[in-house]
Amino acid sequence: MSLDPKVAERLKRNGDGLVPAIVQQHDTGEVLMLAWMDDEALHRTLTTGRATYWSRSRSEYWVKGATSGNVQHVKAVSLDCDGDTLLVQVDQVGAACHTGDRTCFDADPLEVSAAP
Amino acid sequence: MSLDPKVAERLKRNGDGLVPAIVQQHDTGEVLMLAWMDDEALHRTLTTGRATYWSRSRSEYWVKGATSGNVQHVKAVSLDCDGDTLLVQVDQVGAACHTGDRTCFDADPLEVSAAP
Repeated sequence: MSLDPKVAERLKRNGDGLVPAIVQQHDTGEVLMLAWMDDEALHRTLTTGRATYWSRSRSEYWVKGATSGNVQHVKAVSLDCDGDTLLVQVDQVGAACHTGDRTCFDADPLEVSAAP
Repeated sequence: MSLDPKVAERLKRNGDGLVPAIVQQHDTGEVLMLAWMDDEALHRTLTTGRATYWSRSRSEYWVKGATSGNVQHVKAVSLDCDGDTLLVQVDQVGAACHTGDRTCFDADPLEVSAAP
């Protein structure tokens, strides 16, 4: 069993065979994190309902929350207009960030010096 | 004038010197698109208040909406925990997607075959 060929033919992967996946809390709209998927990670995400990524640092598949318990129940997955980015809408249990923050973007706002 | 060195030293760029930027409508939470920034594009975004990207297909800076009028007024920019992804919260004028759709993720939902 592997990724549906109709989906696979629309995916545009980077040189490492990966596509970025934006992960969003389905009801609040919070952007939780960015992760990376290859075809197999996307297949597992679509067929198991648990968000599964390719860890670039560990070179292995990574079921989000397998260690921490902070799993992501998959609600919807969309491919963008160019076929090179995924949007994964989930129900996040607990914190998405390994630091314990709810999202990976909570800690570090940058200064915008010009208001439009 | 270039990117604040305190920001630049925290950025982790890919092999092409780029960082992915998730673009979100600031009030509704809609994820609009994914684009890419180098240091100069981030500098221009932070200091002009207009979202500015690096176009990988055209190899040039790209002020979103410069041609279409569908500009993005920047409300906030955050760096993630690893320093390798940006979240850009904007007020999007009109459609974000070149297809005319509001977001780049509207057209192509994938089938999730397992509910968690």
